[in-house]
Amino acid sequence: MTGVPLRDDLFMLDRAAQDLLFRAARTANTFTDEPVGDEQIAAIHDLVRYGPTAYNGQPLRLLLIRSPQARQRLLPYLSSGNRAKTAAAPLVAVAAADLDYHERLPELYPHRPQARDWLADEEQRAAQARFNAALQLGYLLIGVRAAGLAAGPMAGFDAAGVTREFFPDGRHEALLVINIGRPGPQAWGDRLPRLPTDEVIRTI
Amino acid sequence: MTGVPLRDDLFMLDRAAQDLLFRAARTANTFTDEPVGDEQIAAIHDLVRYGPTAYNGQPLRLLLIRSPQARQRLLPYLSSGNRAKTAAAPLVAVAAADLDYHERLPELYPHRPQARDWLADEEQRAAQARFNAALQLGYLLIGVRAAGLAAGPMAGFDAAGVTREFFPDGRHEALLVINIGRPGPQAWGDRLPRLPTDEVIRTI
Repeated sequence: MTGVPLRDDLFMLDRAAQDLLFRAARTANTFTDEPVGDEQIAAIHDLVRYGPTAYNGQPLRLLLIRSPQARQRLLPYLSSGNRAKTAAAPLVAVAAADLDYHERLPELYPHRPQARDWLADEEQRAAQARFNAALQLGYLLIGVRAAGLAAGPMAGFDAAGVTREFFPDGRHEALLVINIGRPGPQAWGDRLPRLPTDEVIRTI
Repeated sequence: MTGVPLRDDLFMLDRAAQDLLFRAARTANTFTDEPVGDEQIAAIHDLVRYGPTAYNGQPLRLLLIRSPQARQRLLPYLSSGNRAKTAAAPLVAVAAADLDYHERLPELYPHRPQARDWLADEEQRAAQARFNAALQLGYLLIGVRAAGLAAGPMAGFDAAGVTREFFPDGRHEALLVINIGRPGPQAWGDRLPRLPTDEVIRTI
């Protein structure tokens, strides 16, 4: 598929795990009926929360949409192509950045509690919250796969609308909606092309 | 450390791999002299490029700082606490978002080539480029660990200055500087605290 010979000697992680997390893993568009329990999500979080963030700030927050009422509130904000699969997914999570995550830094970064004050500017802090929450979303999607589940992350939604509907405190920003479950029939099409290494990496 | 009992029955990924990627992995501040070759970075990229991005856009770009001259150009833009360790690291990478990544969408997202036009607005596209490149950085940091290496991602640098210095085309934005190598003596201190699950995840 890639033209790059696989070099297992360059990895500590074995091939089966590489496949589980990256090479064979796919974004799912259909799911089986098997439920995804709270303990499974807690276990995934317990794993991926060790991923690094700036000043150990950990701005990512997750809202699990479990009640039928909550799901009905979410669906109108999704792009039309994302509604049916989200209505049918075993679990839907809304990922958001906590815009006031700096308030916890004296506890999370105890050797430099003044880091809270470095993030006093609201606009800069919001940018940092988005960036670091996105890093954590990268870890989370890998963690979902580590649990043997498939994720269906969706950027096609009205983020401002979801933020107003589900985070009325005005101190969070919705970033991504993620369907989670076991892949169902025809869960995906052909793998889309990836950029070759020489277009992504330059050396100086 | 966490109070949450480990539930291996909830994971497909075995414990050794969980430890390698998350639980035992740490951000390194010192490195051995062992070089990190281009083929190692290419292998890591070949693995992590399969991680999902919106419209399969893949906006992340990496600049490997290999020449002593290039490293000297980088160091003044780093916060003072990050300079010595970056001067000594076997490899330094500058990660950036390609602000014109949408130009490739007709090839990367061939079933909906009009996705390029959905990203015509420069400001919205820059936000999408940052967000999706950050997701990819999450995958990349896991991939560095999968290769048995340690990463030292650093947010403490003058991003506008690094962008001007290393991406003079004005069409990229520097996001993160990452030291990469094998951990050296006293590469890290105690693990910093992580937020408990019930502060990160809510259910409705």
